[in-house]
Amino acid sequence: MQPQLLERAIALAVRNVQAGTGGPFGAVIAKDGVIIAEAGNTVTTTCDPTAHAEVNAIRAACAALGVFDLTGCEIYSSCEPCPMCLGAIYWAHLDRVYFAATRHDAALGGFDDRLIYDEFAADTARRRIPLLHIARPDARAPFEAWWRRQDRVPY
Amino acid sequence: MQPQLLERAIALAVRNVQAGTGGPFGAVIAKDGVIIAEAGNTVTTTCDPTAHAEVNAIRAACAALGVFDLTGCEIYSSCEPCPMCLGAIYWAHLDRVYFAATRHDAALGGFDDRLIYDEFAADTARRRIPLLHIARPDARAPFEAWWRRQDRVPY
Repeated sequence: MQPQLLERAIALAVRNVQAGTGGPFGAVIAKDGVIIAEAGNTVTTTCDPTAHAEVNAIRAACAALGVFDLTGCEIYSSCEPCPMCLGAIYWAHLDRVYFAATRHDAALGGFDDRLIYDEFAADTARRRIPLLHIARPDARAPFEAWWRRQDRVPY
Repeated sequence: MQPQLLERAIALAVRNVQAGTGGPFGAVIAKDGVIIAEAGNTVTTTCDPTAHAEVNAIRAACAALGVFDLTGCEIYSSCEPCPMCLGAIYWAHLDRVYFAATRHDAALGGFDDRLIYDEFAADTARRRIPLLHIARPDARAPFEAWWRRQDRVPY
């Protein structure tokens, strides 16, 4: 844990608000203590609801390194990652996550992070966004095509 | 529910594998039955671990409509959205999700969707990727800057 990197993520979040670039969130990705990428939230200015600080930082780090796997890297976030960002962290195979503010702080800030965590924990039948499984005989066809392909690239 | 849109998402997933563009996943976003955007998974070919079919479709739909809120739209996915994609669906405020294959089918396909759902449900102390809260006196500074900004754009 390098305290100055978490401090930097918080400073990025404050600057992001002051610059009008997006929500009050910042993230830094480092490898062996060296910063690979950093980003603020740009949801409203890039018209992209997935453009959270952590997702932006992951995309930037992958672009910088030319990889889709960030094994060996750590992420410092100004706030506890929301479920989308935590999922992205798993897919990116980051080693570790450090965060300062919590989902409860985010809720006080007017953000839905805690609500979305609560939705994940709720029974699917009681969720705000209906999630409907439609059984189809061809549902596994994409996976069958995947296994047939000898040169498939796993991730 | 328009069965042909789910069929289209599955066909996209199969074609995505055949074209070597990425993993066996496809998604279609529609509004009032009209397709707004569709996408396959491009993780390995765009070096972006967040480039799942649903995230790509959400980004494309927002770009097409010039919005960061897809209220009024529905998403059809070839497979149950992973936690990252489900989080993105909440942030995009999609109305409804239809999917064909399940997280268990994805696991048989060699994908980590179910594992990541299990991680979300696990106690943070027992997770594969350590998630560490570092308390800091300035943790809420970004939210304070946010509330001070009169012209903030919520999302």
